[in-house]
Amino acid sequence: MNYRVILFVLTRLLAVEGLIMLISGGISWSYGETDFMSFALSTAIVLGINIITYPFLRNISKHIGKKEGYLIVSLVWVVFSFFGALPFYISGAIPSFTDAFFETASGFTTTGASILNDIESLSHGMLFWRSITQWLGGMGIIVMAVAILPLFGIGGMQLFIAEVPGPTPDKIHPRVKETAKRLWGIYILLTLVETLLLWLGEMNFFDAINHSFTTMATGGYSTKQSSIADFSAYSQYVITIFMFLAGMNFTLSFFAIKLKFNKVFKNEELRWYTSIIVVITLVIAVIIWKNNDIGIEKAFRDSLFQVVSIITTTGFATYDYLLWSPVAIVLIFMLMFFGGSAGSTGGGVKIVRIMLLIKNSHFEFKRMMHPKAIVPVRLDKRSVEPKIIAHVQGFIVMYFIIFVVGTIIMSAMKLDLNSAMGAVIACLGNIGPGLGEVGPASNFANIPDLGKWFLSFTMIVGRLELFTVLVLFSPFFWKK
Amino acid sequence: MNYRVILFVLTRLLAVEGLIMLISGGISWSYGETDFMSFALSTAIVLGINIITYPFLRNISKHIGKKEGYLIVSLVWVVFSFFGALPFYISGAIPSFTDAFFETASGFTTTGASILNDIESLSHGMLFWRSITQWLGGMGIIVMAVAILPLFGIGGMQLFIAEVPGPTPDKIHPRVKETAKRLWGIYILLTLVETLLLWLGEMNFFDAINHSFTTMATGGYSTKQSSIADFSAYSQYVITIFMFLAGMNFTLSFFAIKLKFNKVFKNEELRWYTSIIVVITLVIAVIIWKNNDIGIEKAFRDSLFQVVSIITTTGFATYDYLLWSPVAIVLIFMLMFFGGSAGSTGGGVKIVRIMLLIKNSHFEFKRMMHPKAIVPVRLDKRSVEPKIIAHVQGFIVMYFIIFVVGTIIMSAMKLDLNSAMGAVIACLGNIGPGLGEVGPASNFANIPDLGKWFLSFTMIVGRLELFTVLVLFSPFFWKK
Repeated sequence: MNYRVILFVLTRLLAVEGLIMLISGGISWSYGETDFMSFALSTAIVLGINIITYPFLRNISKHIGKKEGYLIVSLVWVVFSFFGALPFYISGAIPSFTDAFFETASGFTTTGASILNDIESLSHGMLFWRSITQWLGGMGIIVMAVAILPLFGIGGMQLFIAEVPGPTPDKIHPRVKETAKRLWGIYILLTLVETLLLWLGEMNFFDAINHSFTTMATGGYSTKQSSIADFSAYSQYVITIFMFLAGMNFTLSFFAIKLKFNKVFKNEELRWYTSIIVVITLVIAVIIWKNNDIGIEKAFRDSLFQVVSIITTTGFATYDYLLWSPVAIVLIFMLMFFGGSAGSTGGGVKIVRIMLLIKNSHFEFKRMMHPKAIVPVRLDKRSVEPKIIAHVQGFIVMYFIIFVVGTIIMSAMKLDLNSAMGAVIACLGNIGPGLGEVGPASNFANIPDLGKWFLSFTMIVGRLELFTVLVLFSPFFWKK
Repeated sequence: MNYRVILFVLTRLLAVEGLIMLISGGISWSYGETDFMSFALSTAIVLGINIITYPFLRNISKHIGKKEGYLIVSLVWVVFSFFGALPFYISGAIPSFTDAFFETASGFTTTGASILNDIESLSHGMLFWRSITQWLGGMGIIVMAVAILPLFGIGGMQLFIAEVPGPTPDKIHPRVKETAKRLWGIYILLTLVETLLLWLGEMNFFDAINHSFTTMATGGYSTKQSSIADFSAYSQYVITIFMFLAGMNFTLSFFAIKLKFNKVFKNEELRWYTSIIVVITLVIAVIIWKNNDIGIEKAFRDSLFQVVSIITTTGFATYDYLLWSPVAIVLIFMLMFFGGSAGSTGGGVKIVRIMLLIKNSHFEFKRMMHPKAIVPVRLDKRSVEPKIIAHVQGFIVMYFIIFVVGTIIMSAMKLDLNSAMGAVIACLGNIGPGLGEVGPASNFANIPDLGKWFLSFTMIVGRLELFTVLVLFSPFFWKK
C-alpha cells in the first residue's frame, strides 16, 4: 500500500476545502458577523497540515492502485467531515464536536439530517458553509478530484471507477476528466438557473442560492427551521422540479441540453422514475385530499413535494408526512429505499437496481416453467449479464443487512422500532428525515452521541454505495 | 391442462379431510358436546362431493405434469381451508365465514394467527380439529398425498418437487414414497414423545396431545387463551425443546435416530440455527433481566421460549415480547424473517437461505479485490452453483416485494406501520403473532374482512415458499 500518495491526495484536497471555508468566512465578514475568525482559523489549520506534511510528500510515487483508490475515496469523506466540522465547533455555533461532525458528514454526504434546533440563529457564513458542503458532496468530492488531481500529476480513473454510482453509467466522453468537466458544467448551470428562478420569487438572493445548492445536491439543508413549508407555492414547485432533475441521471440532462431527446426518452430508468413519482403522488394526493380539509391543489402539491423529496433523497419538507394516514406513511417509507437514478446526486438503492430486481423476479416464473431456457433481463433493450444481476442482488442483500444491523444498534440506544428504522434508512439512504422521533418535524439532536457517530458512518457507507467503504473492513482487502 | 385429474386428486384428498373431521366430531361426541353434528354434516358434504363427481372422474388419464402439480399443490390448501372451515361455521363456534376460513387457513398453513377472543369456550372437538389442521399442514398435506395418492395409482413425484422446502434437501431414500413414510414416522414418533412428556407434567392428556400437534407443526395454536404462559416451567421447557426439533431439518432427526450423529453435527444449517438461537437468547435474557424485576432463570426461560417460538415460526407465547425494551423487540422482529431450517415444518425464509446470502455477500468483497477469480459459496463443504445462489437471491427479493406490497395493502386498511408490517410477516412467515395490534397479547379479530382474506392468501403463499403459488398468476404459466 502506498500510504504516502494517500496522504498526499488527502492533504491537497483538504487545501481546497480550506479555501472554500475561507470563502464562507468571507460571507460572514461581508455581513459583519463576528464568526469569520473561526473560518479563518479552520482554514489555517488545514493549510498548516499541508505545509507541515509538504517535505515528506515530495518526490513520492504517484501511482494510485485499486486499494489506494478505495482507501482515498472512503477516507476523504471522513477527513472532510472532520475538518469541515471545525468552523461550527470553533465558533460555538455547534458546541459539541460530535454534533458538529454529524452535521458536516450529513452535509457532505448530502443526507441533510440535522442536529440543529434553531437553524435561523446561525450566521450567514455558517448557513452558507452548511449548504456548500452539500453542493460539493452532491456531485461528489471525487468527481471534483478527477478534475483537480491531474493538476498534481495523478490520474483519477481508479477513483472514478470506485465512485461513479450505478451498474451501467452511460459514457458522455471516453476520457474521465472530460466527463467530469461536463458533469460539473451541467451541475453549475442547473444550480444557477434554479437560483435565478427562486430569486424571481419571494426569496432573497442568499436563500435562493443556498436552497439551489442543497436542491441540486439532493441534500435538503434549508436556511429555515421550517424547511420549505413557509415559502410560496411558486418556490415549492420550482424546488420540486429541480429536485426531480437532481434525481435524474446527469448524463441525460447533458443529452437534453445537447437536444438529443431520443436518448433521453428511450431511457428506461427515467421512465420508471417518472412513473413511480406520478403514481405514488396521485395515490397520496387523493388520500390526503379525502382525509383532510384541504384544497385539491394543496393536496397535490404537498404529495408531489414530499414524494419527490423522499425518492430523490433530498429530504426537504413542506408538510410532516407522519401526520398523514398509515398507507401514505408506508408509501413514503417504501420510497426511502428507492432513491434517485444512477448517475444522479441522489442516494438510496437507486431506481435502476430496483428495476433490474423486479424484472428479474418476474422472469423467475418463466425460468420455472422452462428451466433450461436462458432468460436474460433486458435494460434499454440490451440484455444484462447475469453477473450484473447477481451483483445488484448482492447489493440489495448487503443493504438490508446494514439496515437490519443498524436498526438493532439504534434500538439498543432506546429508540423504538419506527425511530430506529427511520434513523438508519434516513442516513443510509442519505435522505435526512426518517420516521418516529426523527421525522420531518423533528431532528437528530436527541440521538445519543454513540448513535450520531454510527449514523455518520452509515451516511458515508450509503453515499459510497456500501462496498467501497465496507471492503476496507474485509480481510480480503488487507491480504497481500 | 388435465383439469380432471386435478379435480380427482382434490376430491380424494378432501375425503381424507372429511374422515379426520369425523374423528374430531367423535371427540366432541365422547365429551357429550352437542356440536358433533356440525362435524358430521361437514363430512357428509365432502363425501357427497366425492360421490357426485365420481362418475365424471372414472377412466381419466392420471398423468400429472408440472403444471397440474403446481395447481394441485396450491389449490389443495385453498380447498382444505374452505371445507375445513365448515365445522366452525356450521356449529356457530365462529359465526363469520371469513373468520372461519382465516382460522382454518391459519391452521393448515401452521401459521397460528387466530381471530378467537375466547379459545377456552370452544368444545373439545373444535379444539382438536383446530390443532390437527396444524399437525396435518405441518408435515405437508402433500407429503401425505405422496404416501396416499399412489393408492389411487398416481405418482406423487411432481408434487413432491413442488412442495419439499429448501434449496438442497438431503435424500433419505431414493424413492419419494419411502422418504415420505420415514418422515411421517419421525413426525409421529416425536409427537408421541412430546405428548407423553407433557402428560407427565401438569397437563391432562387432551391438552398434551393438542400442544404436541401444534408444537411439532410449528403451528402455535393452544387450547388456552393465554397460550403457554400459565403452564409450568417444566412444560415450557419441554415445548421449547420440541419447537427446536420441529424447526430442524427432519432428515437430521432421522439420521440422529439411526445414530448417524456425524451427519447431524457436520450440518452447517443446524450449526447456524443453533448459534443464532443461543446468541439472541442470551442477549435478550440479559436485557430483560437487567430491565425487569425478575430472576435470572425466568429471564432466560422467557427469552429462550420466545426466541425459539419465533425463529421456528411456531408462535406460542409465554410473555408478550412487545413489553420488552426496543432492542429486544427489534431482534424478535428480525427473527420473524429467518424461519426454521429447510426440511422442517417451520415457515419463513429458512436459515439455509439466510446463510447462503450472508456467505455470498461476504465473498462479494473477495470478488471486488479479484474480479477475475471464481469464488464459489460453500455449503457443507460442497460448492454451491451460482444458479442456486441466484435463485435464493430471487426468493429473498420476491419475499421483500410481497412483504412491502402486503404492508401497503394492510396499511390501506388503517393499520399503522408496525401493525401492518407485523400482520404481513406473521402470516407470510407462518408465525402467528406479529407487532402492534396483532402482537402476542392480541389477535387478528379486528382486521377488516378484506384484510383477513388477503392475509389468508399470504399464509398459503408463504407456506408454499412463494413461487409455487405465484407462478399461477404469471402469464408464463398459462401460455401453451
